[in-house]
Amino acid sequence: MIIFLGLFLFIHAKPQTASSLNLLPVPQKIELGTGYLKLDQNFSIAIHEPVHDTILIKGVDRMMQALNRRSALYFIHKHITSNNNSDTSNLQITIDRPANPAIGADESYVLSINENKIILHAPTTLGALHGMQTIMQLLSKTDDGQIYFPTVKIQDAPRFSWRGLAIDVARHFIPLDVIKRNIEAMATVKMNVLHLHLSDNEGFRIESKTYPQLQDKGSNGRYFTQAQIKDLIAFAKERGIIVVPEFDMPGHTKSWFAGYPELGSSPNTNESTVSLFKNMKKMDLVSIIKLAQTAPIPAMNPAKESTYEFIDRFMGEMAALFPSEYIHIGADENNGVVWKNNPDIVAFMKAHKIPDTHELQAYFVHRVQKIVEKHNKKMIAWEEAFSKDISKNVTLQVWQNGTYLKKAVDNGNNVLLSKGFYLDVFYPAYIYYNNSDLPKTLNDNLPLKLKGGEAAQWTELADETNIETRIWPRAAAIAERLWSPSSVDNVEDLYRRLFAVSKQLDEQGLQHIGDYERSVRSLSNDGDYDAVKALTDVLTPLKGYKKLFAQLGNSSESLVYPPDPLVQVSDIVFVDSKTKWKFREAVKAYLENKDPGSKEIILHYLNQWKNNDVSLKKAFDRSSQLKAVEQHSKDLSTIAAIGLNAVKNIENGVAPNQNEINQNLEILKQADKAYGETELCIIPEVESLIKQQLMPLPASYPIF
Amino acid sequence: MIIFLGLFLFIHAKPQTASSLNLLPVPQKIELGTGYLKLDQNFSIAIHEPVHDTILIKGVDRMMQALNRRSALYFIHKHITSNNNSDTSNLQITIDRPANPAIGADESYVLSINENKIILHAPTTLGALHGMQTIMQLLSKTDDGQIYFPTVKIQDAPRFSWRGLAIDVARHFIPLDVIKRNIEAMATVKMNVLHLHLSDNEGFRIESKTYPQLQDKGSNGRYFTQAQIKDLIAFAKERGIIVVPEFDMPGHTKSWFAGYPELGSSPNTNESTVSLFKNMKKMDLVSIIKLAQTAPIPAMNPAKESTYEFIDRFMGEMAALFPSEYIHIGADENNGVVWKNNPDIVAFMKAHKIPDTHELQAYFVHRVQKIVEKHNKKMIAWEEAFSKDISKNVTLQVWQNGTYLKKAVDNGNNVLLSKGFYLDVFYPAYIYYNNSDLPKTLNDNLPLKLKGGEAAQWTELADETNIETRIWPRAAAIAERLWSPSSVDNVEDLYRRLFAVSKQLDEQGLQHIGDYERSVRSLSNDGDYDAVKALTDVLTPLKGYKKLFAQLGNSSESLVYPPDPLVQVSDIVFVDSKTKWKFREAVKAYLENKDPGSKEIILHYLNQWKNNDVSLKKAFDRSSQLKAVEQHSKDLSTIAAIGLNAVKNIENGVAPNQNEINQNLEILKQADKAYGETELCIIPEVESLIKQQLMPLPASYPIF
Repeated sequence: MIIFLGLFLFIHAKPQTASSLNLLPVPQKIELGTGYLKLDQNFSIAIHEPVHDTILIKGVDRMMQALNRRSALYFIHKHITSNNNSDTSNLQITIDRPANPAIGADESYVLSINENKIILHAPTTLGALHGMQTIMQLLSKTDDGQIYFPTVKIQDAPRFSWRGLAIDVARHFIPLDVIKRNIEAMATVKMNVLHLHLSDNEGFRIESKTYPQLQDKGSNGRYFTQAQIKDLIAFAKERGIIVVPEFDMPGHTKSWFAGYPELGSSPNTNESTVSLFKNMKKMDLVSIIKLAQTAPIPAMNPAKESTYEFIDRFMGEMAALFPSEYIHIGADENNGVVWKNNPDIVAFMKAHKIPDTHELQAYFVHRVQKIVEKHNKKMIAWEEAFSKDISKNVTLQVWQNGTYLKKAVDNGNNVLLSKGFYLDVFYPAYIYYNNSDLPKTLNDNLPLKLKGGEAAQWTELADETNIETRIWPRAAAIAERLWSPSSVDNVEDLYRRLFAVSKQLDEQGLQHIGDYERSVRSLSNDGDYDAVKALTDVLTPLKGYKKLFAQLGNSSESLVYPPDPLVQVSDIVFVDSKTKWKFREAVKAYLENKDPGSKEIILHYLNQWKNNDVSLKKAFDRSSQLKAVEQHSKDLSTIAAIGLNAVKNIENGVAPNQNEINQNLEILKQADKAYGETELCIIPEVESLIKQQLMPLPASYPIF
Repeated sequence: MIIFLGLFLFIHAKPQTASSLNLLPVPQKIELGTGYLKLDQNFSIAIHEPVHDTILIKGVDRMMQALNRRSALYFIHKHITSNNNSDTSNLQITIDRPANPAIGADESYVLSINENKIILHAPTTLGALHGMQTIMQLLSKTDDGQIYFPTVKIQDAPRFSWRGLAIDVARHFIPLDVIKRNIEAMATVKMNVLHLHLSDNEGFRIESKTYPQLQDKGSNGRYFTQAQIKDLIAFAKERGIIVVPEFDMPGHTKSWFAGYPELGSSPNTNESTVSLFKNMKKMDLVSIIKLAQTAPIPAMNPAKESTYEFIDRFMGEMAALFPSEYIHIGADENNGVVWKNNPDIVAFMKAHKIPDTHELQAYFVHRVQKIVEKHNKKMIAWEEAFSKDISKNVTLQVWQNGTYLKKAVDNGNNVLLSKGFYLDVFYPAYIYYNNSDLPKTLNDNLPLKLKGGEAAQWTELADETNIETRIWPRAAAIAERLWSPSSVDNVEDLYRRLFAVSKQLDEQGLQHIGDYERSVRSLSNDGDYDAVKALTDVLTPLKGYKKLFAQLGNSSESLVYPPDPLVQVSDIVFVDSKTKWKFREAVKAYLENKDPGSKEIILHYLNQWKNNDVSLKKAFDRSSQLKAVEQHSKDLSTIAAIGLNAVKNIENGVAPNQNEINQNLEILKQADKAYGETELCIIPEVESLIKQQLMPLPASYPIF
């Protein structure tokens, strides 16, 4: 059944070292052996559990099918039930007690693989699910096609108990199947909280049976039914993931007022804010911030008792629907202008001695908190909900102002960190990975109070056609930051594993690569595809919110009309270019040790890029989207020629004069501009090649 | 708003001729002008309808979004409501009366495009929906990026009122999102019936509230809830498509007996039939057919009154759920063996003077028909339900024995044709297109009684990961056969449009190309992808049921265990290779007129194929799936070298001796074999090049 393999059987195989494993996130402790457990079609699994644990059994069966699919071994033992408990099975899975996903539950596991057997033990179901993800990532193939696991001992547990992904399904509705694919991906990298931003100005995205006008008038017909939500929660639960709903209030509530205008603070809250945002196109950032502070942005009326009665009944309905311990009430970005403009609210403030709208917001938050707790839930809110009198029961989510982290912890509140984890600002993965707002060492109250964090994908510029490309694989870097010890911080190794996990997610059915390539096909004609893709492979979206501000007003779905389609090159390309990283690795290896294989890779890319522009002439003429990035294509060609020349000089030991180098560096600098809201991402690597011409090899390649 | 364009503005554009339009299906009458209507961001649409027609308005809005997305023009007029009825809008849509999808409803439309305006008129909503699909397919782009419609006059109506696609969701469950994508694709090619095969031995795939054990014990947890079915029906209805459910009985019912064994004819109907099928692997076709005729295959007990009471209550529930006029009761492939083995049933036959099991089946069908009609539905059944006494109300679906077509029509029954339309036998599109069982001219009773036909995708060898690649674009050839006049029969033009519609479906989100490419990525390592794809692009699955028989026993989901994963090369490749057709077109053009562009294409492919095998050495070693087709790669290389030599000889006017030609033809013949249940599909084209060496150009290239 098991074939005992000495190293001699693996002479063609490249034995793995710990640093070549593709585990993401990296486990707490890992000890890699030198042996192997080879898989064949007799592979079998046994489950040992105290009571019938459906989540565990389904999870093991899912892993068995996934192993069967990835290995193509066609196992004889096809299907897992709780009756599979033979001690002779290769993989022995034991848990002490079943557990549903919950914050703070024991998620640890111990995994041991020797040449005969795999032993996975976990105190709870949740640890076993994580351990199985580790097993899947350990699955390896030799160059001669043998399927094996390396021998290894792993002790693992998360650094933080809250490892979340927040998805905004309001600005663009994201359908059920897309959310499910994201859940599968989250489970792969051991994330445990899906935070759904279910309502915002642009849409109310969940069915309420108590207040059906919320979805009927507050959405364009695109929302989750309660049956779908139940299905989603069950799907997530089976994968160890909690679904936390967010109902943003008192601001971000325009969609509520479409059906229930009495909730609003202004008689004309139904008035479109679109015209307001439209002008943003022509504004600079300072003006936009000022506008956000001074514009009459819709908000609930905190002065009417009926508002709280509504919230009470609504929260009661949602508390029954979502088993999550937590409900998120938003409470962000409410500037209070509509409150100041409403005489009734002003009178209410005077009567209740509420000095300003910030205190009025604190009053509102306090009232809502009581409602949430009445329905046996804990409340989460964004940092703006913080006030000196805030209840210590409230969990605060820091997103913009890092000082709230300390303030809230000092006040005794639990905290979640999303500052530095916003995926919608188009930063590459290593920026999130190095998030400076997350303390490296946890001292004082932090270990108790900082519960973890959340990646966040807002959807002004993401919809069902590109959101997977937006979130993945970058969110995996955040998953690792929240799971692994803080000492795990090698960026190069992160990227190696990030692209490995990206391939794994692709095989599992995630559409991040599929959506990108479909979009490239859509921009291409039959013969163009390779050349278009060679260009888009090295373009990344303009970083920060510049792209968002350029498009505001048309970028989200709304009650009034559908959004503009997201069909520009900037909408479809990855934030982290895999080609850039392959090129970067090659440049690094070449400059460090003149590695000939790396030189071949460098020359392959540079020659491709140099000659790519000429093949795109017709494509640029035909497509306005491609036309917008044409200058990048020309620059890529020029830069590649400079790079080729630099490699020639390095090879020949010929140093060009400083003048020529300066000229070339100036050309690179000129190319480092945005066109069509995208940037050319391989400039630093060519810069290294240029600078190297003046220095002897081996060089120490500057990483960032 | 509209820019009047003379031809002089289009000097770079290649004006379209009727034969270069990408319409699929081809309309009944088409008259192509020489002018153009150019689109810009001021494009607008007006709707004129007698009453508020939600299906129409939603359909027009969907088209507007799709036009906006495909053109990237960012229309100012973003959203369509019934208030949009201005006479100055570019596109004027008028219907006489609203209509829900129904068999025999008026689906005709008239479309006229001149340089100023598009006029779409249809008697009903359904015709308008079809007309909008035509508009989408007319959308064109000049080489300099201008978006336009050609001026055209079209009168269109379907040849047959029933243009269906049957999907088996029982053997492998196919989830909701995949079915919805298929519905979108069906609407694109003007199909109007989705036939869901909802139950079979391997699974009961729909929730019954009356008999919940049907899905609870009769599926592996994978079935449609009633909420999902309602959602699906509404989604289909908005696209002009009817959902017809099939509940196959009295045979194909093993999954029913898991929860309700009393329905079965044999005390051991729960016994696995898997062992039976397992042996098929070693059998020849004759033995398999004999086995199918003699094995005790599970069937309902037709002798018990309680069976009909059960069916009555069940049909009542389903009749209320499905608005379709029709319910399909299967009635196929019941060999009667379990009936003969049951003494109670034998006694029943004697008592009722039923001479044989065929007559007993007729009795059962008659009883069920009364039940179906009691619930105000019309009954459909497969050809086996035919008997001389069958009610003329029954619609018969012919799938295997073509003589039933005439028999049934002569008997006065309506008929649907699926014989020759089974997609799961892996035939290329032109075979279905040329289906000889569909009369070219309809005479006698045929025009009245032959209502149309259905493509059918059975899912022993298809699951959610490959079913779109299996169905599309081939089903579009059947859609055209059932819509267009029978005089539309040019196979080469079909293929040109088939691959154009394939690109359109890809852009719309269908996963047929995406799933194929994901699977190729999964078989590839980083550097291998292009070479692996170059090989798989010219492999097609072995035709007929050979592949099915080779895998029977493990190929379907079952109550007992999950199926083998569909991860062989034969599972993932297209039945119609686009590369083959591009190569074929080039060979044809080259041999006809020595077209230099075509020669370049031929040389490009042949050189790529010749050199491809050497890059795949490592890939074959690593992957058992690729290893199974390694011989094809070697043969491809050899054949390509022969082809290159032939082109050289043709160019130089050198005729090799007949011996050498015979040797090369023998090599081709040897290469024309199946490996890994796939075939190399470019052999006929290379054969033409070889034979051409002995003949002067231009040649008349043999098409099939």
